[in-house]
Amino acid sequence: MTNKPHIAIDAMGGDEGVRVMMAGVAEARRRHDGLRFTLFGDETRIKAALDNHPNLNAASEIAHCDGVVDANEKPATALRKANSTSMGLAIQAVKKGEAGAAVSAGNTGALMAMSKLALRTMPGIDRPALAALLPTLGDNDVVMLDLGANTECDARNLVQFAVMGAAYARVAMDLSSPRVRLLNIGTEDLKGTGEIKDAASILRESADLQMSFDGFTEGDKLARGDVDVIVSDGFSGNVALKTAEGTARFVTDLLRRAFTSSIRSKIGFLISKPAMHLLKHHLDPNQHNGAVFLGLNGVVVKSHGGANAKGVANAVHVAARLLEEDITQRITHDLAQIHALAKAETAAK
Amino acid sequence: MTNKPHIAIDAMGGDEGVRVMMAGVAEARRRHDGLRFTLFGDETRIKAALDNHPNLNAASEIAHCDGVVDANEKPATALRKANSTSMGLAIQAVKKGEAGAAVSAGNTGALMAMSKLALRTMPGIDRPALAALLPTLGDNDVVMLDLGANTECDARNLVQFAVMGAAYARVAMDLSSPRVRLLNIGTEDLKGTGEIKDAASILRESADLQMSFDGFTEGDKLARGDVDVIVSDGFSGNVALKTAEGTARFVTDLLRRAFTSSIRSKIGFLISKPAMHLLKHHLDPNQHNGAVFLGLNGVVVKSHGGANAKGVANAVHVAARLLEEDITQRITHDLAQIHALAKAETAAK
Repeated sequence: MTNKPHIAIDAMGGDEGVRVMMAGVAEARRRHDGLRFTLFGDETRIKAALDNHPNLNAASEIAHCDGVVDANEKPATALRKANSTSMGLAIQAVKKGEAGAAVSAGNTGALMAMSKLALRTMPGIDRPALAALLPTLGDNDVVMLDLGANTECDARNLVQFAVMGAAYARVAMDLSSPRVRLLNIGTEDLKGTGEIKDAASILRESADLQMSFDGFTEGDKLARGDVDVIVSDGFSGNVALKTAEGTARFVTDLLRRAFTSSIRSKIGFLISKPAMHLLKHHLDPNQHNGAVFLGLNGVVVKSHGGANAKGVANAVHVAARLLEEDITQRITHDLAQIHALAKAETAAK
Repeated sequence: MTNKPHIAIDAMGGDEGVRVMMAGVAEARRRHDGLRFTLFGDETRIKAALDNHPNLNAASEIAHCDGVVDANEKPATALRKANSTSMGLAIQAVKKGEAGAAVSAGNTGALMAMSKLALRTMPGIDRPALAALLPTLGDNDVVMLDLGANTECDARNLVQFAVMGAAYARVAMDLSSPRVRLLNIGTEDLKGTGEIKDAASILRESADLQMSFDGFTEGDKLARGDVDVIVSDGFSGNVALKTAEGTARFVTDLLRRAFTSSIRSKIGFLISKPAMHLLKHHLDPNQHNGAVFLGLNGVVVKSHGGANAKGVANAVHVAARLLEEDITQRITHDLAQIHALAKAETAAK
């Protein structure tokens, strides 16, 4: 478990195949000088894909394996193939310290189960969380976590998620003190579950954290761009993420329907194409690709199954940034602050 | 608590004032022949507003009061003014049986607290829930509940919400057997909390309900139009509702920004205006106005604070339909089925 700039790539995951994965990794390599890769998967197909990318070819070694984790495979079944699949072996490389990070576009549940089992949670973290970047109306994306790894969470989990999310935002968006809020059903102190209220008071009392914690936010403010990290349990986080995706699709579907409702609209649509392109670009998941499992002894990044080369490049870029900035160390630092505070409080009682 | 076609109106609630409320009620009156109203609030202002609506004037009596519940008033404070405010007195009229339903565009928290205290939950219901209609890509809206009345819910609560939501969908959308699903973070049986899984098995076993229960749905499928009722606890329901509202606003804001980014886009926008109008119409909350507190001994409908006359008319229409179709009786029927099943199971043990 080192931070050497070496990333293990599951070349076989994702719906778009080896060629798209390799094109994406090659693009990321151009942004990160000195980065090296081990590419896990079918050697013949990887080699063929590398033909177009001499820069990546020169920076990579191939580790052949036959096994692949299926997109619909249950995590429990996938776990049995940890040592024979491209996904499993990429994670093993992180465990052995041969790589600092792993990137896969495969089955999320399997990736999480394998990562947890192989890498274990880092000291001070009870449960890892799944974090991702979402688009906003502001200049930066917003980090949301947990997006589904933990269905039920207590106050301690939520506090740890806040610490991990803030560390991720500092690295991914170059912020010194990210604005962190807990997702709630109102912004008044009285609102929400006991767990959320307790987490809020712990975070308020912890003054030395590298974040600016400011209470609660609500579902309608996720994309406003005035918050950098939104923390929730995995159930409501997953509901919020999917509702946002579904609603964005719903509105653009309505728009498409409206634009094809008359010849006049069709003409308007043609003229407005650059504007529509801007919208599409902003909502494009490839622009915000790279969900991260935070809280493990090692960096694991999940690329969208349907990501294009640009999307894959963004996911690899996220992994490289997390390695370069040593996210594990940053999380450890903030956790130590919270633990010191808890100890001082216990001693004072 | 009768079902006579008489509705108590809180004339003072809402951001748009007495005139908009009266215009909306007058519009609803035209759709429901024989409906009568008691209008609670400032007599002078109500009378002035009625000048434009002789049809409503002829079908109404005015009950003057000076007190108003403030938009930002805490529910606990509002409760003390149950007998002196337009909102409180409208609910009292339902309690006394003088009206079958109350409609208010005022403070949601205060309306819920006052309604619960005055009307109490109906037999067989542990907790009332807040339900609303949301737009979909299909022909019908979708009923969502609970939207924030109950932060934490057990399986029994969720089952009762399903029964109430199905009854509401039958009335509001004229469906004989609404398709009901529980909101979850996946559609596989293994997904979600214990409460959700237990609620699903109770609903699956209850064969004689007037609904077609079909397991789980996810946040990205809320607006697809293939489900009629989506059931959740009040926390995730509120998160989903607000995230949907916020994302719709986010996308339309992006669109506006894109359309004003160049002269070409502006021209395109002008030509596409009818298309944009269609989109706006579909997303307009006034089209889907009328959130309902289900599970009380009496019908209480909450109109959006910012609703226009058309929105208010829709809220009053919802109240009238719930009265005409005797929603309380429909809920009672389905609850009896579930209780009979539970008894039979206990006896069999």
